[in-house]
Amino acid sequence: MPARPIPAKFPTMKAPILTPRAAALPSTVPFTGPETLERQNGRLFKARLGANESMFGPSPRAIAAMKAAAEQVWKYGDPETHDLKTALAAHHKCSPQNIVVGEGIDALLGYLTRLMIQPGDPVVTSLGAYPTFNFHVTGYGGTLHRAPYKADHEDPDALLDLARQSRAKLLYLANPDNPMGSQHSAATITDLIANLPAETLLILDEAYIDLAPPGTEPAIPPETANVIRLRTFSKAHGMAGLRTGYAITAAPLATAFDKVRNHFAVGRIAQAGALAALLDQAYLMTIRSKAAAARARLAEIARANGLIPLPSATNFVTMDCTRDGDHARAVLRELLARDIFVRMPGVVPLDRCIRVSLGDDAALTAFAEALPLAIKAAG
Amino acid sequence: MPARPIPAKFPTMKAPILTPRAAALPSTVPFTGPETLERQNGRLFKARLGANESMFGPSPRAIAAMKAAAEQVWKYGDPETHDLKTALAAHHKCSPQNIVVGEGIDALLGYLTRLMIQPGDPVVTSLGAYPTFNFHVTGYGGTLHRAPYKADHEDPDALLDLARQSRAKLLYLANPDNPMGSQHSAATITDLIANLPAETLLILDEAYIDLAPPGTEPAIPPETANVIRLRTFSKAHGMAGLRTGYAITAAPLATAFDKVRNHFAVGRIAQAGALAALLDQAYLMTIRSKAAAARARLAEIARANGLIPLPSATNFVTMDCTRDGDHARAVLRELLARDIFVRMPGVVPLDRCIRVSLGDDAALTAFAEALPLAIKAAG
Repeated sequence: MPARPIPAKFPTMKAPILTPRAAALPSTVPFTGPETLERQNGRLFKARLGANESMFGPSPRAIAAMKAAAEQVWKYGDPETHDLKTALAAHHKCSPQNIVVGEGIDALLGYLTRLMIQPGDPVVTSLGAYPTFNFHVTGYGGTLHRAPYKADHEDPDALLDLARQSRAKLLYLANPDNPMGSQHSAATITDLIANLPAETLLILDEAYIDLAPPGTEPAIPPETANVIRLRTFSKAHGMAGLRTGYAITAAPLATAFDKVRNHFAVGRIAQAGALAALLDQAYLMTIRSKAAAARARLAEIARANGLIPLPSATNFVTMDCTRDGDHARAVLRELLARDIFVRMPGVVPLDRCIRVSLGDDAALTAFAEALPLAIKAAG
Repeated sequence: MPARPIPAKFPTMKAPILTPRAAALPSTVPFTGPETLERQNGRLFKARLGANESMFGPSPRAIAAMKAAAEQVWKYGDPETHDLKTALAAHHKCSPQNIVVGEGIDALLGYLTRLMIQPGDPVVTSLGAYPTFNFHVTGYGGTLHRAPYKADHEDPDALLDLARQSRAKLLYLANPDNPMGSQHSAATITDLIANLPAETLLILDEAYIDLAPPGTEPAIPPETANVIRLRTFSKAHGMAGLRTGYAITAAPLATAFDKVRNHFAVGRIAQAGALAALLDQAYLMTIRSKAAAARARLAEIARANGLIPLPSATNFVTMDCTRDGDHARAVLRELLARDIFVRMPGVVPLDRCIRVSLGDDAALTAFAEALPLAIKAAG
């Protein structure tokens, strides 16, 4: 029978009724993508240095593995991500049961928040730290308590105090830190863990750990119940567009992710690329060298223009523009106007800085050319 | 300072405290992956015909686009998926504001459930329909009401009655259906929409629509507020391992996904592959032909072995083993033992059947060889 015209009474609903919590949330994006800015500008960026991507790219072996997997993409990825988990467990000297693979740290943060946070539950983070974590906490109705940075570092003592006062269920700390690029020693992190309140789980976001100096990565027995470490293939491994990250934690919590995760979300190409990248540790060493050189060059560029480059344990250099947030925002705006994509911290006093990702020679040269003009135009 | 040994009091926590709802959920997987079975069996399947993947693969243009994107995977994907959304809107003659791109239909179902379902909210589906939807509803505390199938079709009248009785917020219907392969006409779907209770949103899962006969796809004005249609690149487009799907719905609901979605989850390779596949509609036509031929061959194989192939509007053929669930489960077990991966419906009376995905000639030949042996062994 042929399709009939739609009846006059159709549609019957004005709008679907969201839950009160969902209705109260803004429709937002934690970060505006560079593509959005390019569409607004009507032209492409000359240098893409704003999202802490790795312009050095992934291992050639990872690229080859992804291309091979593209031929097999008619198959779902293994929902247990067995091969990748096994390799990660060998790499970290733990059991596959201590590993959760997810569609990026962002997804893992979302699942963890869902597992642990009810409306009103207290959560501690730093004022100016990773906004996507806050997006998830707010999304599940948690209450954020924020400790200020201290000398451009996240402040473990203040975070601990806040966790004790608020009886926090989660304490988020990135080491190395984003957006300031600073790090704490392994010993400081170990002390923090030892002093956590009994009801507090530490989320130790180690997205940038592969780029940090020796002594930054603490030895934490994998069955430690009050810590979950987060890692990613987006930064040093150079595959931000692949969306693959993982957690290392005690087996009971790792298993709990199976209650809520999107079991098939890490696809076939993602698993193949991540596995090949993990196995090419020699390539990762070359990235560390390139990163060190690019950090040094960015620091020079900053100094040559009267900015103060902060020490960086990451794939970006945060530069103190030496005045207030309005001035740094003006510098940022003028860089964007000159087709240089960079970002900056959002809160006082971090917002005196701009944050510039490492890049290849051409990108850093484009930045070096644009920066003095941008500073001049910012006035 | 060197890392100190971990203090004796470390760790302090026995296990993180999950929310009561999370604690009550099982750690489960909606589907066991074929790789898990292969690891259990200690050998690979000869024919992978259980997950309704497309062994015909994606468009060569999509493969080329994914390979090219692999070279650029150091960049995050556009969080607005602008180019893909624009192309989808042109394809469906709607606005990009009517489109939500997500990391597969599974993710979109999860986000939608989160947006709309509070604990105890009623949700209607068919008894034996897509378990991953149920996984999400249960995960957010919704209450499932299930209408039995009628003559191997989902039953729109029974679903509507149940929605009215329960005052359902969501009504899930797949057209064409999985696991039975049946479909309703566009007119039946249009009537269903016209008769929805005012508080009920229809989730019209059209994962298999590209393989359905003419007259199956209803014309629904995109601004219709009480319907959300779900589509995927996993089935006819042959990219299950890419994890890309999308929703078509009224702009207010589409925008609401931005409240909760993982904004960067659809990566660079996924967006490139999906866009290239969408633009290669000629390839999709060849898949329809191949699917029709494979359906006919699978139906022949079924009949030759005394099974009754059900009519299929999808990329699989559900075969009535003509006895009860125990018998069909035995046939399935014997097929698995002969390295043929197939699945079957989980509930009475659908579980008298096995479900066999379309495949290439070699896979169907392997199935044809194994089936009589499996039936004999099943007794």
